Amino acid sequence: MSANQTSRGGGPHPAFPHRHLLGIEGLQPQEILGLLDRAEEAIEVSRQVEKKKAVLRGRTQINLFFEASTRTQSSFEIAGKRLGADVMNMSVSSSSVKKGETLIDTAATLNAMHPDILVVRHHAAGAVELLANKIDCSVINAGDGPHEHPTQALLDALTMRRHKGKIARLVVAICGDILHSRVARSNIILLNALGARVKVIAPSTLLPAGIEKMGVEVHSSMKEGLRDADIVMMLRLQRERMAGSFVPSVREYFRYWGLDREKLSYAKPDALVMHPGPMNRGVEIDPEIADGPQSLIREQVEMGVAVRMAALEALAEHLPNK
Amino acid sequence: MSANQTSRGGGPHPAFPHRHLLGIEGLQPQEILGLLDRAEEAIEVSRQVEKKKAVLRGRTQINLFFEASTRTQSSFEIAGKRLGADVMNMSVSSSSVKKGETLIDTAATLNAMHPDILVVRHHAAGAVELLANKIDCSVINAGDGPHEHPTQALLDALTMRRHKGKIARLVVAICGDILHSRVARSNIILLNALGARVKVIAPSTLLPAGIEKMGVEVHSSMKEGLRDADIVMMLRLQRERMAGSFVPSVREYFRYWGLDREKLSYAKPDALVMHPGPMNRGVEIDPEIADGPQSLIREQVEMGVAVRMAALEALAEHLPNK
Amino acid sequence: MSANQTSRGGGPHPAFPHRHLLGIEGLQPQEILGLLDRAEEAIEVSRQVEKKKAVLRGRTQINLFFEASTRTQSSFEIAGKRLGADVMNMSVSSSSVKKGETLIDTAATLNAMHPDILVVRHHAAGAVELLANKIDCSVINAGDGPHEHPTQALLDALTMRRHKGKIARLVVAICGDILHSRVARSNIILLNALGARVKVIAPSTLLPAGIEKMGVEVHSSMKEGLRDADIVMMLRLQRERMAGSFVPSVREYFRYWGLDREKLSYAKPDALVMHPGPMNRGVEIDPEIADGPQSLIREQVEMGVAVRMAALEALAEHLPNK
Repeated sequence: MSANQTSRGGGPHPAFPHRHLLGIEGLQPQEILGLLDRAEEAIEVSRQVEKKKAVLRGRTQINLFFEASTRTQSSFEIAGKRLGADVMNMSVSSSSVKKGETLIDTAATLNAMHPDILVVRHHAAGAVELLANKIDCSVINAGDGPHEHPTQALLDALTMRRHKGKIARLVVAICGDILHSRVARSNIILLNALGARVKVIAPSTLLPAGIEKMGVEVHSSMKEGLRDADIVMMLRLQRERMAGSFVPSVREYFRYWGLDREKLSYAKPDALVMHPGPMNRGVEIDPEIADGPQSLIREQVEMGVAVRMAALEALAEHLPNK
Repeated sequence: MSANQTSRGGGPHPAFPHRHLLGIEGLQPQEILGLLDRAEEAIEVSRQVEKKKAVLRGRTQINLFFEASTRTQSSFEIAGKRLGADVMNMSVSSSSVKKGETLIDTAATLNAMHPDILVVRHHAAGAVELLANKIDCSVINAGDGPHEHPTQALLDALTMRRHKGKIARLVVAICGDILHSRVARSNIILLNALGARVKVIAPSTLLPAGIEKMGVEVHSSMKEGLRDADIVMMLRLQRERMAGSFVPSVREYFRYWGLDREKLSYAKPDALVMHPGPMNRGVEIDPEIADGPQSLIREQVEMGVAVRMAALEALAEHLPNK
Repeated sequence: MSANQTSRGGGPHPAFPHRHLLGIEGLQPQEILGLLDRAEEAIEVSRQVEKKKAVLRGRTQINLFFEASTRTQSSFEIAGKRLGADVMNMSVSSSSVKKGETLIDTAATLNAMHPDILVVRHHAAGAVELLANKIDCSVINAGDGPHEHPTQALLDALTMRRHKGKIARLVVAICGDILHSRVARSNIILLNALGARVKVIAPSTLLPAGIEKMGVEVHSSMKEGLRDADIVMMLRLQRERMAGSFVPSVREYFRYWGLDREKLSYAKPDALVMHPGPMNRGVEIDPEIADGPQSLIREQVEMGVAVRMAALEALAEHLPNK
């Protein structure tokens, strides 16, 4: 993959040929780059005084979250509203699921309300795809268990491309809790598709079996792993998912895998630091680094709104009844 | 009641003469049919690309839910937004009620914010009417304890009429947990008003005292009860409301009162199956029937949005300050 | 302070020279009066059929509540929507805070989404100002611990001015749980700034140390405290914040400090009664007084929407990118 990866500027975009955005897996490099190009334009919408574009006017977007998430849900809500959609949030823990309704019934119920786009987060891998198969509208996966979180990978790629000009041949080190991370998984697939070199760094207990087959270099030491890195992507230590498994203490974890000034010095001098948030400051990252000049962490959030606007817009063009 | 019950087509609708929609009780047959006619038009709005009608532009709709409900609250939210209203959801368990505020104070507080329409669900029968008496705006009852749930009965009637052409002289069997069901109660009142023949089927422990006086035939056996039925309306077994009362086990319940292929064969060959949702699959209904060709269950949800748009619109015309 | 305090009528308003509204402290009397004048106009917007003014069209308002509040959050939500803003509610207890994210990270995350106005309630005094210093957009303090609640003081002042013509030289008695009350604190600052005479009445255990230095008269007896009062402002007894401190029983409290007909007779015959809500009926106030002819309690809520519209509008004019 060595096609032109720089931003292509304004103008009409090539149609996105999928009805859903369920994962990065299965997307062609040109499709990924097309979404990034759309997102570049969306950045400008959010920076205007009147942050509005009418492409989803009269459309209904439902955010269906089976797991709580400030950041992702807010980002999708703002993205949809800035495109003029009617946005409805449904937090499902407190409702029908308690009454014994199945995922499929929930989907069918929503479907009958004629939404145009459904944004779904679920704690089980594959649940979002299952739901997409039962529903007439477009579906965006906002994270399904440890499986995929495509808009996160897209926003990370957008952030990288804006600072490094392209993705191909970048050296990206992904560090930390790879085992529980859909963010890592979607990023690895995207980065491979666009020709980056991916290194993963983690204690062996936080690596999924067979990770080598995903086309990444595996390291357990930060010193080796960070060598030559253009991008250092830290992951959140998801302690709430670790019941029963052996994990190092927080203090020990920080000592060996937490990104501090010394460890960052192993990467390239102009390496940039990313984190999908929310951060555990002092656990996987030193606050000094998180807030330092090499950090892109806040910019990632801005890119998150832009990428979600791009995804909503791309799918809206594809809605059958338009 | 044998007036023309078919849909009357487009054009201006006769004014709805009530300020609130608190129940089916007290509505004239022509008023019920007028709401169904309005709803027919609303169906089309939701099927368009741009799902908007401006009748509530600049109006404030507050959804005040003292009990959680995915389905009903979403349906009212979407209905209001498609009519252009500013919709605000208030889930009250987590707020002032904890601080010891009374229902009346909550109502007065909301009233002072000049809403145009208040949609209220409450766990106590009569609470919505009490509140309506203390407030200047229009109120829609979205379910008050075991009392009434008028928009559910309207959406059920709309669904039936669209498939059977009219309501008069239909044989409707309502099966299951009649005792705890405002859905059953509102449906019985509506169906009687429009001249249907209503049969209720339930174990004796799930029948309210004096049900015969509501003008229904009472059966405990599905075989007898379903005979001649055009419509088989199953109710959700509300196990969460049954603490302390004698109820059959789920397995036994399904055996005697759960709708499966065999029991459905007792009804007319072209009988249609309804359920207000959320379903307990395998408890009151066999999944094969729920998803089968005679089921209208998903269509009911679509009709739910339409009926709520109709109700909002009818009351909006009636707002004093228009 | 004896400037003209009556409403100045319509027309363009003098610019509000602050980027945030964090408290009443630090505001000039003319700035306070300017907000009240804007609010007078906003009252009319909410009384129209189409309750809309487009000053925040395309703007993003985020309501970030670290403490639940029906009344205040609803009031800000309705105010923002009536001005045309896209309003997003974030209730933070159920989200990132659980995952260990700091206040500053939450702020930075939100900031990156380019909101125009952030409305924040937090349980810690000073938290809102801390956040305002880290963020590019305008911030309104919707209550920070026992510190300030400026829009409450403004709506109280607006209510008083509409009934008494001005604030200067009014005698205002603030009664009850002064210790835990940001409402009391903001009101005292505002009333002093506009030249009212403020008396506080409370049992000694519910008075903050050094209250005398705020320029108020301190009383423990309602009889003395209410003498000459034009306005009797009752506070909610915040029992949930009193763990471990000595408080009278509810019965005893009502007997000595609860406002009933007899105690109200100690004030001026035309005294008016206020309460920020939610009320504990029978604890700090007799229901007969709360609902009686001298009560302004419901009007306060209406003024709440108006004052919040005024504050949003005043800050919107001041947004750097307009």
